[in-house]
Amino acid sequence: MLDQIAQVLTKVRQETPLVQAITNYVTINDCANSLICFGASPAMCEAVDEVEEFAGMISALYINIGTLHEEQHRAAVRAAKKATACHKPIVFDPVACGAISRKLDVAGELLDCARISVIKGNTGEIKSLAGRAGKMRGVDSLDDGAGAIEACRSLAARHQTVVAATGKTDIITDGSRVCLVDNGTPMLSLITGSGCIAGALTAAAAAVTDDRVVSTAAALMALGLAGEMAAEAVGALPGTFRVKLMDFIYGITEEDIISRGKARWL
Amino acid sequence: MLDQIAQVLTKVRQETPLVQAITNYVTINDCANSLICFGASPAMCEAVDEVEEFAGMISALYINIGTLHEEQHRAAVRAAKKATACHKPIVFDPVACGAISRKLDVAGELLDCARISVIKGNTGEIKSLAGRAGKMRGVDSLDDGAGAIEACRSLAARHQTVVAATGKTDIITDGSRVCLVDNGTPMLSLITGSGCIAGALTAAAAAVTDDRVVSTAAALMALGLAGEMAAEAVGALPGTFRVKLMDFIYGITEEDIISRGKARWL
Amino acid sequence: MLDQIAQVLTKVRQETPLVQAITNYVTINDCANSLICFGASPAMCEAVDEVEEFAGMISALYINIGTLHEEQHRAAVRAAKKATACHKPIVFDPVACGAISRKLDVAGELLDCARISVIKGNTGEIKSLAGRAGKMRGVDSLDDGAGAIEACRSLAARHQTVVAATGKTDIITDGSRVCLVDNGTPMLSLITGSGCIAGALTAAAAAVTDDRVVSTAAALMALGLAGEMAAEAVGALPGTFRVKLMDFIYGITEEDIISRGKARWL
Repeated sequence: MLDQIAQVLTKVRQETPLVQAITNYVTINDCANSLICFGASPAMCEAVDEVEEFAGMISALYINIGTLHEEQHRAAVRAAKKATACHKPIVFDPVACGAISRKLDVAGELLDCARISVIKGNTGEIKSLAGRAGKMRGVDSLDDGAGAIEACRSLAARHQTVVAATGKTDIITDGSRVCLVDNGTPMLSLITGSGCIAGALTAAAAAVTDDRVVSTAAALMALGLAGEMAAEAVGALPGTFRVKLMDFIYGITEEDIISRGKARWL
Repeated sequence: MLDQIAQVLTKVRQETPLVQAITNYVTINDCANSLICFGASPAMCEAVDEVEEFAGMISALYINIGTLHEEQHRAAVRAAKKATACHKPIVFDPVACGAISRKLDVAGELLDCARISVIKGNTGEIKSLAGRAGKMRGVDSLDDGAGAIEACRSLAARHQTVVAATGKTDIITDGSRVCLVDNGTPMLSLITGSGCIAGALTAAAAAVTDDRVVSTAAALMALGLAGEMAAEAVGALPGTFRVKLMDFIYGITEEDIISRGKARWL
Repeated sequence: MLDQIAQVLTKVRQETPLVQAITNYVTINDCANSLICFGASPAMCEAVDEVEEFAGMISALYINIGTLHEEQHRAAVRAAKKATACHKPIVFDPVACGAISRKLDVAGELLDCARISVIKGNTGEIKSLAGRAGKMRGVDSLDDGAGAIEACRSLAARHQTVVAATGKTDIITDGSRVCLVDNGTPMLSLITGSGCIAGALTAAAAAVTDDRVVSTAAALMALGLAGEMAAEAVGALPGTFRVKLMDFIYGITEEDIISRGKARWL
């Protein structure tokens, strides 16, 4: 299966999918740069009078509600409806939906009005969406424990989508198949934006592969592995790590995935 | 007194305060990353329908009006009122209030509707707030001269708050005690965001220490000292300096503060 | 002519022009940092109730419509009118105007209501503005081919402005004179923000030199040359390249321009 995962990287680089991102302003630059490094073409098109037209031309849509203001909210709904109508994959990142009730409302609204291909959150966010109270604290998840796989499966089945819960081990499932990815480094939690980058890359991968469990595993594994390589190169220096992370997202090869990727299937 | 200042760093790392920031989009990423490096947990929660709920859970609130748009304005007022009601420390950064009259109006509104724990600005901004016309030019201060300590004292007394005016020498006062901090490097003026990072760290420090003169001195000294160390490591390379600044904010120790901190008390 | 171009750099450093930028949130930080490195003073003043007052004090205005939301739209129009009334140079960056019809509408509105000193876009954007359909795909230009110089000349003549179309060769014209700049590196397309930085530096240069063909050539050449030097120092590492790009924008000298600048005049 690592072969299939590795091939997603090559496909992204060959096809240069155009990824529209409506995302938070904290890490919007990191999302754009990581998409370019991954081989995609980012377009942070989010003005409410632009998104409908633009969503007709894209390869995939990424929606992240981290700092969703009023205009972005209206734009996200419009873009999601149009992308759904045009059969474009949508990756949804329900940032902090376990901590703030308006975010949970917005998440519900998006899940109702659009066809989401992948929901990508941390374990607490996914549990909150699944109706199981995850213990949340701001945007960070405090709970990686048991029940996470069941929460993912249940959420995936309910919305006929792929669900990815990131953590020390990433869980990816379409409700039946479950892929666990064990790549990554604690350094990724010493920078802001790891989760957002994961979501953006997941959208790029979803654009080139119909099997969204495999494509999501590829995105999360690529980021985790790039993080491992950056941490090995840099050590405990968060500023330098963040710079090298981009270098390694750009440089990662199929061979890196095959030799160092850690995926298990349940 | 350097002992007390140094201990603030350790407390931040032990308690990982959750800092809500409503801040400008130029340096929002720098604020988030510097807060993580400092040991805090940042949450840039600013949507108008979210801030009230969220401000009830935080350790401290940071408000920076650098690019304050209409929704952020409403959100800042709501968050400030809620944080006041919940007895959470608020750090207010009146960016460019000496140059633009609407900013001075917003500053007055926030000072009237909320209990601000620390006002942190450059000397020109503080003088403008204090009703003494500082010569302003955009967001930079052109006047570090005489009268600054008096302006700080007067403003602190009027609002029963701590006032910090940054410059070559940082001035921190609660209206009676005055602490002068002499750490820093001219390189900090070759990147955008030094002032915003100072404000964000000040909020994290305020969350863990009731003596806000000491906590503010700790935040400004940590940033100044990290800047000195980054400048020594890098030289006159602003891009690389900015990266290393984060590394040193993360790596700075109590020993660094005690051996290299420069504080004087009046 | 390289002498004249090189002198623009020195003038920027001597005069530290105050550049107001109303720009997209993807690269707003890169614009601010690159302006500082170039020797200018950035001020991302964009709140609708602030821009009119502020535009009276500035040296130049940069407007970039990449993520233009509703308030920014109103602010951009106000700021542009005020800057026009105050005879301040305005640099306009019609990002993605070839791909999204609302952006073309906004571009037309700004060109109608204000006196634009320089329109800076990629070749596809300029062709779209000139009424010739460039093949567009998101924010990237796919067409550097023939007709570009004619499109620039026609657009410049129609709006009595300077037009710059960036690409492998940058084209700069006031409708009669044409300057072609051949500096740059493919690495600049592996980061987001190259175009925005080009626009911001063009505004800084426009503030210090009345000949806007020369000032624009200086900005584009400085960025291209800094890119070349960063690519030579770094190789194919986009994250590190982006950091070093800032270092070289700061460090570039008149001698670098004279020895390595590549400009041709038609």
